[in-house]
Amino acid sequence: MAVIYQRVALIGLGLIAGSMSLAMRRAGLAGEITGYARSAETRAIATETGLVDRVCESAAAAVEGADLVVLCVPVGVMGAVAAEIAPALKAGATVSDVGSVKRAVIEAVAPHLPDTVDFIPAHPLAGTEHSGPRSGFAELFDNRWCILISDGVRNRPAVDRLRALWEGMGAHVDEMDADHHDLVLAVTSHTPHLIAYTMVGVADDLRRVTDSEVIKYSAAGFRDFTRIAASDPTMWRDVFLNNKDATLEILGRFTEELFALQRAIRLGDGDHLHDYFTRTRAIRRGIIDAGQDTAAPNFGRGSKG
Amino acid sequence: MAVIYQRVALIGLGLIAGSMSLAMRRAGLAGEITGYARSAETRAIATETGLVDRVCESAAAAVEGADLVVLCVPVGVMGAVAAEIAPALKAGATVSDVGSVKRAVIEAVAPHLPDTVDFIPAHPLAGTEHSGPRSGFAELFDNRWCILISDGVRNRPAVDRLRALWEGMGAHVDEMDADHHDLVLAVTSHTPHLIAYTMVGVADDLRRVTDSEVIKYSAAGFRDFTRIAASDPTMWRDVFLNNKDATLEILGRFTEELFALQRAIRLGDGDHLHDYFTRTRAIRRGIIDAGQDTAAPNFGRGSKG
Repeated sequence: MAVIYQRVALIGLGLIAGSMSLAMRRAGLAGEITGYARSAETRAIATETGLVDRVCESAAAAVEGADLVVLCVPVGVMGAVAAEIAPALKAGATVSDVGSVKRAVIEAVAPHLPDTVDFIPAHPLAGTEHSGPRSGFAELFDNRWCILISDGVRNRPAVDRLRALWEGMGAHVDEMDADHHDLVLAVTSHTPHLIAYTMVGVADDLRRVTDSEVIKYSAAGFRDFTRIAASDPTMWRDVFLNNKDATLEILGRFTEELFALQRAIRLGDGDHLHDYFTRTRAIRRGIIDAGQDTAAPNFGRGSKG
Repeated sequence: MAVIYQRVALIGLGLIAGSMSLAMRRAGLAGEITGYARSAETRAIATETGLVDRVCESAAAAVEGADLVVLCVPVGVMGAVAAEIAPALKAGATVSDVGSVKRAVIEAVAPHLPDTVDFIPAHPLAGTEHSGPRSGFAELFDNRWCILISDGVRNRPAVDRLRALWEGMGAHVDEMDADHHDLVLAVTSHTPHLIAYTMVGVADDLRRVTDSEVIKYSAAGFRDFTRIAASDPTMWRDVFLNNKDATLEILGRFTEELFALQRAIRLGDGDHLHDYFTRTRAIRRGIIDAGQDTAAPNFGRGSKG
């Protein structure tokens, strides 16, 4: 594949930035990749492992001369980072981000940026429970979706170029507006995470069931919740603080449905339960058909635990 | 390994029974395995695939002469099946089951059984989202836990023999009383399943987010819920109807915690959220250390989707 950006700057060097660097290298999409992280330890690890081509000592130094700048920092500090790099941005550069919420990021970042750059927010829907500069891998985005928020962008070629970069890193690309993104993600990601965190917290609190019992018997369903609930706490705090309205709306609906099922259990209404459980099965089939998961029993974990 | 039971009868021929048959064969644990399923189609498939050594035309015929009879039917029909097989049971036989709840199964089954047999309820904590006579595989129980309810059993050698069978099929075995089992499972399995079903139902209902969006963007967390929520509806209806008290208790605690987190989101209390999310991370580490899941990013799904 051809080089799409001569110089790419990654601000923040965690799971997503590291995977982007490795995925861009895999396909030869960038001439040079610079990087910066606030933590000196992270910068040292990135230097040692050669995660990017050049680790810089400040965000402003990293973005100097960059054709594409990607903010890979927690949503809560996007605004401050944007303010810091704004004076150093090259005219004609594209600025993007990888935050899990989009309306709040636009409100925090856009006011700081000069008119000479295009801001195209992005959200790659990929991740693991791991974080930090050693957690990235080149295949993270393969066959995953990346959503671009393009509706406010006047420079269409800049959008197409960023789209080509994400496709070159293995992702499928969709475009939508920021509010719809935040609602879709509240349903498919933010509320499920909050629920998983809650369930794990309940198990941890329950005195009559020991932690070791919870752990030993987790294969029966709980395990998948703990994987979700092990994600980066700072990232998730920022997600909920910054996608408050949509998350609270979906939580309200969730509670309503949960109470209806709870009532069916209390009343012994087996038909209600059976109908509900049958309906949800169809969605699962759709996910497998769409190639977003495998139908292999137990994700292949059956034989090795 | 040596033969542990000369003749084993499996009543019901779904995921668990099929996997038991294949796991017993793998280790040579049974002289002959007979089987029965109510559905003629299931019996035909089991005959065609040689799932067991001999498919019988009635439950009573299958248990005749059996040293071990395992009820692998939904919890809601355990009592009726027990009544049906009781007259045909061999004196000295062991009767067991694989139901996901234990107090209700004991209450339904025990009154029907003659004094000449030992009833030792069991619950293998293993499964996939698949069901039916073609879904079993020999490795299902490897490194998984099987809980035996042994506290009411006077014949200790019978318990040890059943324990040896489960260990021979690859499982670790624990013993506890029925009520504690039901509470532990309400936390680690039943409530997580109900929550997953609910979340999937909410997504399905939401008009402003299309099903295709839910499916496309499921990798961000929702996917793991749909896997859980795709399990057999009849089995899960019976679980909730038969473990009502413990499930409602855990649901009550869950709702309480969820409301506290919801309040923190509404008030913008980032410290509360961050503390909570940090605490739940530790449980995940324990599960990986205990060998009940893999730390591999994304369960190895990253590269193939």
